Amino acid sequence: MSQQKKLNIGLFGFGVVGEGLYKVLEHTPTLNAQIKKVCIKHPEKKRNAPATLFTTDAAQLLDDEDINVIIELIDDAEAAYRIVTTALRSKRAVVSANKKMIATHIEELIALQQKHDVPFLYEAACCASIPVIRNLEEYYDNDLLQGIRGIVNGSTNYILTKVFCEQVSFDEALLQAQIAGFAESDPSLDVEGIDAVNKLSILLTHAYGILSSPNALLHTGIQSLHKQDAIYAKEKGYEIKLVAQAHKLHDGSIAAFVLPQFVAKDDQLSTVRNEYNGVIIESSLADKQFFYGKGAGGFPTASAVLSDLSALRYNYRYEYKKLNYQAPSKLGNDFYLKVCVSFKGLLQVPHERFDQILEWSSNEKRCHVTGIIHFERLIEDKWWKQPGISIVLYPDGIIDNYEPRKNELEYAGLDFVEQEVGI
Amino acid sequence: MSQQKKLNIGLFGFGVVGEGLYKVLEHTPTLNAQIKKVCIKHPEKKRNAPATLFTTDAAQLLDDEDINVIIELIDDAEAAYRIVTTALRSKRAVVSANKKMIATHIEELIALQQKHDVPFLYEAACCASIPVIRNLEEYYDNDLLQGIRGIVNGSTNYILTKVFCEQVSFDEALLQAQIAGFAESDPSLDVEGIDAVNKLSILLTHAYGILSSPNALLHTGIQSLHKQDAIYAKEKGYEIKLVAQAHKLHDGSIAAFVLPQFVAKDDQLSTVRNEYNGVIIESSLADKQFFYGKGAGGFPTASAVLSDLSALRYNYRYEYKKLNYQAPSKLGNDFYLKVCVSFKGLLQVPHERFDQILEWSSNEKRCHVTGIIHFERLIEDKWWKQPGISIVLYPDGIIDNYEPRKNELEYAGLDFVEQEVGI
Repeated sequence: MSQQKKLNIGLFGFGVVGEGLYKVLEHTPTLNAQIKKVCIKHPEKKRNAPATLFTTDAAQLLDDEDINVIIELIDDAEAAYRIVTTALRSKRAVVSANKKMIATHIEELIALQQKHDVPFLYEAACCASIPVIRNLEEYYDNDLLQGIRGIVNGSTNYILTKVFCEQVSFDEALLQAQIAGFAESDPSLDVEGIDAVNKLSILLTHAYGILSSPNALLHTGIQSLHKQDAIYAKEKGYEIKLVAQAHKLHDGSIAAFVLPQFVAKDDQLSTVRNEYNGVIIESSLADKQFFYGKGAGGFPTASAVLSDLSALRYNYRYEYKKLNYQAPSKLGNDFYLKVCVSFKGLLQVPHERFDQILEWSSNEKRCHVTGIIHFERLIEDKWWKQPGISIVLYPDGIIDNYEPRKNELEYAGLDFVEQEVGI
Repeated sequence: MSQQKKLNIGLFGFGVVGEGLYKVLEHTPTLNAQIKKVCIKHPEKKRNAPATLFTTDAAQLLDDEDINVIIELIDDAEAAYRIVTTALRSKRAVVSANKKMIATHIEELIALQQKHDVPFLYEAACCASIPVIRNLEEYYDNDLLQGIRGIVNGSTNYILTKVFCEQVSFDEALLQAQIAGFAESDPSLDVEGIDAVNKLSILLTHAYGILSSPNALLHTGIQSLHKQDAIYAKEKGYEIKLVAQAHKLHDGSIAAFVLPQFVAKDDQLSTVRNEYNGVIIESSLADKQFFYGKGAGGFPTASAVLSDLSALRYNYRYEYKKLNYQAPSKLGNDFYLKVCVSFKGLLQVPHERFDQILEWSSNEKRCHVTGIIHFERLIEDKWWKQPGISIVLYPDGIIDNYEPRKNELEYAGLDFVEQEVGI
């Protein structure tokens, strides 16, 4: 019915994703898309494609008027930013998978799309093969979105699966993830939750029309989780997952953060293993929906890029509808979290910063304190980010209607722990 | 960015879905959509809306030039067909949830959309709240779709969950499903797999561009499943689910059918319980994706209708791209199934129609024969549809590269069963 556009592609980067994309396009003539030129950084590397396809000169792609689509699949976020903005300014459609670059510059990138009236698609930037961005854009375009919870980083989930289900050591699991090719080249981006919070920031834009720098969102990763935390979790029938979430509060504002979370066996996030991703979307009408798929790796990412290409043929673009709502959503900080803090006996965990202590336990290896703490206090405080201290959110750990009620008995409980372990 | 259209709605039907939709629209002004008139069949029923809203005269909606969207949410497929076709001919956008009507008339409905250049959306017709149609349309627009497997009927899945996990009797479970409001008013539509095959037929159109009458697709439901089948399944570590599936074969043709299937615990379909639906989409790039959500009931259906409304504001329409491929997909029958047939000893199950018997067991209550059978023979034969005989597909039960190899030893095995149980 609609006129399909022939896509002449200029591709930046020829790593796992780029090469995968090249192969698929060669075998899929119906897509009516062709890679005209590939810009690479290292011409000396052997490539599985004709040498004439490659150049090290970006201008050969960006100045070629035949090329109507730029695909950017490089690792370097700053170079990616220059490529994407230059391409948008020259009125070319752009596809990117660079979540860090997109999350950091989203406001400017939206403005460029509007100013130059060109589409910029990046489905691959969130959960790779799971079509979560387009679904949030297209399917949940109403005020009824209660929340999103997701495992959005395949690399940390791979590590947690190996560590907690297969008793592999943390370092060994990280090495395996890197060999398998779905850890970032800088593993701290994965492990410290930075990749996850970049994705959360993009999801917030498409889910709620919120523009927030990822750095402004509370986040931590799995870097401080301790073996004893896994044992503690198992005793309670939980696993630990790194969960990015956004949740609509009573007052209509949105709670958003990335924290490790205890996940019960009947929670669908517990079925998400290894490098897979999973996202649960809750809306007041549809109840709970769950999307699951490969969130990392060359082919799943290429698959999302391909679907963006396919959408471009029909002039699809994100409309960022929720940014234009009469009353756009805002981030909210006025709620409580139920968390488990784990630490060695000698570390200072300031229990006076908790609103309530619910449970504690300790042995010679580790103390575990379960309590309720105001979200704003977590943002202000730094103690829980110190090495040796880990923090894990409980299931349903966002408490929106909590009545603070400190009492001495509870403190007495904690003091007892401190005596026992010799603080 | 894009100009939003004001939607003036004429609604047919004010049951659970219609009333839910009315309430949500009242509370969601940002949708810029308003129900102008509701056509109902029974004016004597008490309604939770102003009396002036209602009429029993369809013409009051269909002839009103102010009304630019017709939503059809009635139970009667023939009346729905008349409403939808009349509305499309008068160049109004139409939203429907009537899978039976859509599956039966899809070819004509596509032609009407093209002829009159109007959108007809029906996301609610497949898996209610799961955005599967639009995802297949938009996201898997390439030749890489390996297959779809789904639990697409919430009512039978509710019954199977109750019967197999909670030891409720079949009749009691059906009654519960009807009381809960997610069984069709004619339960045989659910129980005999008719609703599921209607949905499969719609999915085939959007996944592969195949137009097939649902009656032409092999299907059965859960009507003949026996308690002993559940016991047999459990012994093997399986559950039984009613699964609709389409699978790309070696030669590029598509195997498609609805059959009960043994589902292993590590299959994500086993996590789909009660009235929920779940769909697994396999593509050669993205590997496996899983979509899960409520597939029946008033609010989930209203949610899908709402998302169609939301899409209409932006002039979205299905493009049926895959129908226009150079080489559209075709249904294929040249493959084998590995099935378990269960029956009472005295029934005639013609074992010569199997290509191979792999396993048999029998006790005083039931015989179970596992074998391999050509799909075309199942289409030709009627024996497996007789009362008292049930058929269940094995996991990975589609065998695309089977070498037939009948031998006497296997027959001897089956003869032995027959002697034992006194056939």
